[in-house]
Amino acid sequence: MRIGILGTGNVGRAVGEGWRDAGHEVVWGSRTPGAERTVPVADAAGFGEVVVNATPGTASMELLRGVGGAALAGKVLVDIGIGFTDDMGLSHPGVSLGEEIQQAFPETAVVKTLCTMTAAVMRDPGLVAERSTVFLSGDDDAAKRTTRALLSDLGWPESSQLDLGGIATARGQEHFALLFLGVAGALGTHTFNIRVVPPTAGTATTASTATHE
Amino acid sequence: MRIGILGTGNVGRAVGEGWRDAGHEVVWGSRTPGAERTVPVADAAGFGEVVVNATPGTASMELLRGVGGAALAGKVLVDIGIGFTDDMGLSHPGVSLGEEIQQAFPETAVVKTLCTMTAAVMRDPGLVAERSTVFLSGDDDAAKRTTRALLSDLGWPESSQLDLGGIATARGQEHFALLFLGVAGALGTHTFNIRVVPPTAGTATTASTATHE
Repeated sequence: MRIGILGTGNVGRAVGEGWRDAGHEVVWGSRTPGAERTVPVADAAGFGEVVVNATPGTASMELLRGVGGAALAGKVLVDIGIGFTDDMGLSHPGVSLGEEIQQAFPETAVVKTLCTMTAAVMRDPGLVAERSTVFLSGDDDAAKRTTRALLSDLGWPESSQLDLGGIATARGQEHFALLFLGVAGALGTHTFNIRVVPPTAGTATTASTATHE
Repeated sequence: MRIGILGTGNVGRAVGEGWRDAGHEVVWGSRTPGAERTVPVADAAGFGEVVVNATPGTASMELLRGVGGAALAGKVLVDIGIGFTDDMGLSHPGVSLGEEIQQAFPETAVVKTLCTMTAAVMRDPGLVAERSTVFLSGDDDAAKRTTRALLSDLGWPESSQLDLGGIATARGQEHFALLFLGVAGALGTHTFNIRVVPPTAGTATTASTATHE
């Protein structure tokens, strides 16, 4: 598969190298191209059957608008972007970048994933001590199947992939960034992940919302 | 220990009953007292050496202001509150209820905890299939030690308790609520929790922030 990565920071390099090692054709798009396999952003978007947003969330919308809806139409856009304000708040509080991208590019199938962990763990889930969870959010089932296969190529087994539902659920993935930072501070490392622990077998579970009356 | 629980919903009942079963003296404060062990909110706050906010985050500040700073001064306030807007956004986006309470009641030691899971799991961590994580955020170390002991009384071993740091880190715990809702939707139950999975032993970890350049 041809994959165009937008962004050449830790995240773009990690996932791009992972997919290249898995046999995919990968190019990286940069606003300052020149390094090996690095091309202008628009060329990377044009090259990819799958386009990956690995730019900072604060810059993503402007960069994607520069690429343009025509170049992205009919493609899968895997969005890993997270934006922080200067005081480490979210740049998209109350909503999500994933939803904003999907709204701005209705002919593109946006899938939010991988943004709940550090770049090294995205590429190598074995860096953490037990199997852990990667989330997916997106409106298009075919695009999520494509993304699931790409996650498997990075080493994420199907059983570690949790589909949260439509792109509106990207909000949860992005808002986790604040807890990520708190845990990173407590552990003294970004090399960790979370695992969703399901109910004990046989436990009577409830689908009702907790109340704090 | 004398514990005054503010709120008689699922959360207040679950943790209060858990602590009562562990041998503590517990009363519940309600705006409509009458049921067994239920007293007016101000009386519950006055009774407790530890006061627990188990009211909806949207109502907490008004209720606590009604109780008043004098009644809460010198006490530990364990805050479990989460507030949602009508469309399931956070009532305190970009900040946190825990910080707001601490700021409004500087003579009270606020500890945020337990708000990342459903009420039944707060009281019984064994409802989920593997050991999972409970977080603490607070500025006062003595208050966090008291809270740690109370978490142990509910069945949370020390090794499951992760101290994130000061009360500002309550932001991460509260913002997790959106991912909680997404996971609950995907699993079809609220009976789950997350576990922080640390690095594999011997893994070279980095404390540097991921970049999305």
